[in-house]
Amino acid sequence: MPELTAGLRAELARIAGSGALLTDPADCWPYGYDNSRRQALPQAVVFARDEDQIAALVRLCAEAGLPLIARGLGTGTTGATVPDRGGVVLSFERMDQIKRIEPGDRLAVVEPGVTNARLQQAIAAEGFFWPPDPTSAPTCTIGGNLAYNSAGPRAVKYGTPRENTLGLRAVSGTGEVFHTGVLTTKGVVGYDLTRLIIGSEGTLALVTEATLKLTPLPEAKRTLRATYADIHSAALAVSAIMAQPVTPCALEIMDGSAIEMVSRYSELDLPDGAGALLMIEVDGPAACIQEAQRAVGEAARVAGLLELRLAETADEVAALWKTRKALSPALRHIAPKKINEDVVVPVSHMGAFIDGLEQLARETGIRIVNFGHAGNGNIHVNLLIDPDDAEEVARAAHCLDAVFALVLRLGGTLSGEHGVGLEKRDFVDRELDPVALRLMHAIKAQFDPAGILNPGKSLPG
Amino acid sequence: MPELTAGLRAELARIAGSGALLTDPADCWPYGYDNSRRQALPQAVVFARDEDQIAALVRLCAEAGLPLIARGLGTGTTGATVPDRGGVVLSFERMDQIKRIEPGDRLAVVEPGVTNARLQQAIAAEGFFWPPDPTSAPTCTIGGNLAYNSAGPRAVKYGTPRENTLGLRAVSGTGEVFHTGVLTTKGVVGYDLTRLIIGSEGTLALVTEATLKLTPLPEAKRTLRATYADIHSAALAVSAIMAQPVTPCALEIMDGSAIEMVSRYSELDLPDGAGALLMIEVDGPAACIQEAQRAVGEAARVAGLLELRLAETADEVAALWKTRKALSPALRHIAPKKINEDVVVPVSHMGAFIDGLEQLARETGIRIVNFGHAGNGNIHVNLLIDPDDAEEVARAAHCLDAVFALVLRLGGTLSGEHGVGLEKRDFVDRELDPVALRLMHAIKAQFDPAGILNPGKSLPG
Repeated sequence: MPELTAGLRAELARIAGSGALLTDPADCWPYGYDNSRRQALPQAVVFARDEDQIAALVRLCAEAGLPLIARGLGTGTTGATVPDRGGVVLSFERMDQIKRIEPGDRLAVVEPGVTNARLQQAIAAEGFFWPPDPTSAPTCTIGGNLAYNSAGPRAVKYGTPRENTLGLRAVSGTGEVFHTGVLTTKGVVGYDLTRLIIGSEGTLALVTEATLKLTPLPEAKRTLRATYADIHSAALAVSAIMAQPVTPCALEIMDGSAIEMVSRYSELDLPDGAGALLMIEVDGPAACIQEAQRAVGEAARVAGLLELRLAETADEVAALWKTRKALSPALRHIAPKKINEDVVVPVSHMGAFIDGLEQLARETGIRIVNFGHAGNGNIHVNLLIDPDDAEEVARAAHCLDAVFALVLRLGGTLSGEHGVGLEKRDFVDRELDPVALRLMHAIKAQFDPAGILNPGKSLPG
Repeated sequence: MPELTAGLRAELARIAGSGALLTDPADCWPYGYDNSRRQALPQAVVFARDEDQIAALVRLCAEAGLPLIARGLGTGTTGATVPDRGGVVLSFERMDQIKRIEPGDRLAVVEPGVTNARLQQAIAAEGFFWPPDPTSAPTCTIGGNLAYNSAGPRAVKYGTPRENTLGLRAVSGTGEVFHTGVLTTKGVVGYDLTRLIIGSEGTLALVTEATLKLTPLPEAKRTLRATYADIHSAALAVSAIMAQPVTPCALEIMDGSAIEMVSRYSELDLPDGAGALLMIEVDGPAACIQEAQRAVGEAARVAGLLELRLAETADEVAALWKTRKALSPALRHIAPKKINEDVVVPVSHMGAFIDGLEQLARETGIRIVNFGHAGNGNIHVNLLIDPDDAEEVARAAHCLDAVFALVLRLGGTLSGEHGVGLEKRDFVDRELDPVALRLMHAIKAQFDPAGILNPGKSLPG
């Protein structure tokens, strides 16, 4: 990596502006990690302020060959914002204005540093929500959501950021400011650069503003919990639910190993022999909600159903969610480290997938716990390991390799919403078509000829 | 354009295969036009059969510098499939298989030549529909729908092809076969080439197969017709309807000039003083449909509403649609030619837009009739002209220029669903950011280095 000379540092300070540059390692370390537990020291941290500043910074970095890594609030799980090649971390945490909310046009214009939760709060006051809802919503930024196309439970009904973003403003790797997309829900002039940039993990351009498509808040929501004897029954129910006209706004699954784990640490109100569990939510007009609940409940009644419970009051809803919410603390309790993989398989292959995982667990002796967004076939596969046990770590690596092979054999994808970053970079060429991958590299080279925008992330070397 | 030598013709015949090559001008002419009324003679027509054949054809054309223009069934309105630089038209009409329908995974895999209507019929048997529904559905192909990102009325609730396509197989301009996307509704590995190719009008790659996301058919549908004193009241109602939680599955508008035109040729059952009309449809579970109809009806009650009629039986629905359906025949009757422009403005600016159009009509003496998909702000602006009146044609050209300027001043886009083709190619650089446009050209050069895939369409020279 190029040295940060006094001259370069002075240039950085001039471009960053007053109080917007960190170079002391003690100050820089906190900007060198994300939720993957990877960490690296950036040579400098700049706080993004506006497009002119960002464009000047990009030009300086391009000239100096200095990596430039966009960062929201560091909740990513793949190391995509970790500056493993050094360089400048560009933190968007201060560029956090909600610029406009236009209820009549169902859109909001925001800076990338605004958190998902703060956006939701502001637009809820106008009767709207933005569908993407990662678990980290209170602390993750819209810029980060766009970088990884991060979704969450609601995607099953309302889609991911790609389906909920109308346009962007961005700075390319040559330091040029440009805009993409439209202010409307239709538009077919020019190529779709908006979706190309969404999900590109800061490797093509730095997003400086996003025009988000808003959805009216539903009037009512109802929750159901369906418990099954085994994962195959649950998977069948998921297919049945997704094949009828009432699409749930959440359709979450926990497998038997997840239930068993939670049951060790919490008093669970589940029927005996529970081998899988679905949490189902429906939303819509108040007058229709009962019927919607009935329709998905009906679809959930497949062979192997042990119990179907409906909630109407907030307390009942909380009681139903208790098992699911107890899962993360239980996981943390039982294993010092988990490898949380975010894979997707076609809904119809979910049963075969969990079967395969169980077999892998038996073969490798690695404990595997699975839960996720079943309506999208998006399963979070958790390999529980002791990081100090080198032999177990090695077995887990083999197991993970086999998990990815299984996903691809079943027609799935290696990431649904966490992205690629560093964690999966060396696996994605197993999934991506080699011709398509070459086209992606060519696009990268056009947007960022100096190769400074988050180098080495997302696409394999 | 390069001459079609005997050697080249023999190569074409070999690649095309038996009975799949036309070179006689009399045979080729019918493959040289679309619904824009533009026409040009292709040097040859090849009927697409499979990927290997298409890849070989692309390589031959790239070597010979021969333009290669993909064509569905020629229902486009922008000249995008017209071979104005000669070359080979690749007709997909025989590549029309529905390869798989997977109800459990809510997807269908189709060849590009299948018509929209035939797809809908096949998947309806399984309880699904594919949301894009252009007026030309009986005769337009899925390949064409993807090429222009063509939508239709249902897009207001269900989105365009970009929101309803999971992945593609395609042949690039170098004759390489590749696939993009996933089989699932989530997936963020690599850049989004699927959406990049959708809407690119055959200039980046030739789509050979599409994996389409299916939506369960709603149980019930209800129709409303709201008549207003003027367009501003109707535009206000559109905003009010779009701001409440029940999104209609169609929200169509006709302005005063459209109503007046229809009233000359049909007995209309409309209240006196009707200055604008909305056709509204809602769909959903049968048990909720009454309430959905009530909710949008309530939102439609703004100042200026003259009449709100609801339909329940098929006869009542037909009666309400009568005015709208009478429009196209009336337009054809009154004007030998119309310039039908497909523009979009933010919903909140629709009133100002129609005002501006009325002023332009007064200033230029060109009669302008407007209707369209109001929920998306997608207005079809019809300039009625006599093509034999050179002076009027010239005034219409000026008027059109002013219409586009008005659209862009109001934050809109020059095409919602018809695309760019030849018709708007010379206007789109007014809308597109110059930096973004340069990136688009760079992408084009990567996908198609020889510049043979539908050259001169979509992007300005």
